Amino acid sequence: MKVLVIGGCGFIGSHLVDVLQERGHRVRVFDRQPERFREPLKGVEYQFGNFGDRMAVIEALSGVDAVAHLVSTTFPGTADLDPITDVQDNLIGTLSLLDAMVDLGIPRLLFLSSGGTVYGPPEVVPIPETHPLRPINSYGIVKSSIEHYLTMYQRKYGLTSISVRASNPYGPRQAHTGVQGVISTFLARLTAGEPLEIWGDGSVVRDYLHVKDLAIFCSLAIESKNTGAYNVGSGSGVSVNEIVSILSNVTGDTISPVFKPGRAVDVSRSVLDVVRAQTDFKWTCTIPLEDGIAQSLEWWQNL
Amino acid sequence: MKVLVIGGCGFIGSHLVDVLQERGHRVRVFDRQPERFREPLKGVEYQFGNFGDRMAVIEALSGVDAVAHLVSTTFPGTADLDPITDVQDNLIGTLSLLDAMVDLGIPRLLFLSSGGTVYGPPEVVPIPETHPLRPINSYGIVKSSIEHYLTMYQRKYGLTSISVRASNPYGPRQAHTGVQGVISTFLARLTAGEPLEIWGDGSVVRDYLHVKDLAIFCSLAIESKNTGAYNVGSGSGVSVNEIVSILSNVTGDTISPVFKPGRAVDVSRSVLDVVRAQTDFKWTCTIPLEDGIAQSLEWWQNL
Repeated sequence: MKVLVIGGCGFIGSHLVDVLQERGHRVRVFDRQPERFREPLKGVEYQFGNFGDRMAVIEALSGVDAVAHLVSTTFPGTADLDPITDVQDNLIGTLSLLDAMVDLGIPRLLFLSSGGTVYGPPEVVPIPETHPLRPINSYGIVKSSIEHYLTMYQRKYGLTSISVRASNPYGPRQAHTGVQGVISTFLARLTAGEPLEIWGDGSVVRDYLHVKDLAIFCSLAIESKNTGAYNVGSGSGVSVNEIVSILSNVTGDTISPVFKPGRAVDVSRSVLDVVRAQTDFKWTCTIPLEDGIAQSLEWWQNL
Repeated sequence: MKVLVIGGCGFIGSHLVDVLQERGHRVRVFDRQPERFREPLKGVEYQFGNFGDRMAVIEALSGVDAVAHLVSTTFPGTADLDPITDVQDNLIGTLSLLDAMVDLGIPRLLFLSSGGTVYGPPEVVPIPETHPLRPINSYGIVKSSIEHYLTMYQRKYGLTSISVRASNPYGPRQAHTGVQGVISTFLARLTAGEPLEIWGDGSVVRDYLHVKDLAIFCSLAIESKNTGAYNVGSGSGVSVNEIVSILSNVTGDTISPVFKPGRAVDVSRSVLDVVRAQTDFKWTCTIPLEDGIAQSLEWWQNL
């Protein structure tokens, strides 16, 4: 099929484009600017523009069978600084996309939601998809609102959609250091010869997912007829201290991080229950964390 | 205290203004236009303007101790027609209000949410406040998003707020017939000598709340330091057929409604669990449904 990847030049988008091409799909990319770390890919149509530009989005939608919507103009750690812009860019931007898809009769959407923010502080861990959505930051509020609208558009207009509640993706080409991804932030500092900084005591547990495994799930999801929300993660919790330990193993150096006062909003333990994704898609993570980190370090060192 | 009632010329707002004055508060009203059914009230300051006009809202906020935010530019039955406008007017408008309140140091907000739409199809009836928010229409999605943002603004900026999840208010001055309120719609048709129309078989159960009881709760809530979400309703379920039966009693006429095909989105039974409101505020509904309907009919007949 022909797939439009909105945000296809970003970290996750660029990997999804690779997987879609590997699986025989034709790909068009809509993004603000070209990929930061690679030349334009052969066989991919690129259209550059702003997600808020309705006519540019309509042009990008022309002739495609499905859409992967991976754009967010904000990060979990930054969206709270300006919720109005977050809503304007991401919620209204997405509603405009949905309206255009309905108008053009494009029946299939994958939306990249957020397993780390839509639930809020979890009542149970690992967190199942049925857990109430009680987001506590703007990023999560906008993502969960979009999910509700997707359900409404599916019921009212037959636009079938799947929401991917990804855990913490990491891997090559993740370079928004400081605002997203402790692994990449650590790798960047290691590569630059700077000390690693940990907020709190390093016991905070997250679910890390190699971006390639996430991209494979997204491709399977677009190809399927499944709908609704899917948690996508490793299903295993890893502490920040364990990440440091893996980095010590991978580099062969003893790494001594600098510990700083913990941030109040950090949930101590967040791990997704991924049984639904594994059952419905026969999908599972294939890249062990240590291998993924070693591969990512290599990418940083060759940058 | 001095209270700004945003939407104070509307159905619920006009009753809240009455109660606030009865309880000794000074009141300023911000609304698009004067009350439809009454002359301007003595002792109330009126400022007319658009909720989306940030500077007008800031002017209205000047010197007040608390805000009651009752504005919605949409109705549950209409918001789906244009979700982008719903988000723009109501979600972004409210975020702009919150930002202005933080800037001006106004510490207290009452927000009129919606007990009928934020939960979506209920898992249990009566519905407690802890029920997951799974709204299925735009009106409920926007209301629940605002509630999440209120929690965030309280945590980040100390703006304390209370969200009133009202059931189905009815009473004098409710005149948006056809889009809101089966009781008022029936009263309007009876007064006009037209037949009553029922979608479905009349078995749909709702929780009807006299607007005066709602207004009393809102005043108590503003005066308190309580925060979070409160269901406000009668706590009892009444079917549409029972409403018709009450109308027959009140008018002394046998009323034979016209039954029409049911609407797919109607939840068959929605009643709120109001124990939290009753316990925390020593509040309860005081106006029996038959009395409230009789009083509302009289209002319609004298219009």
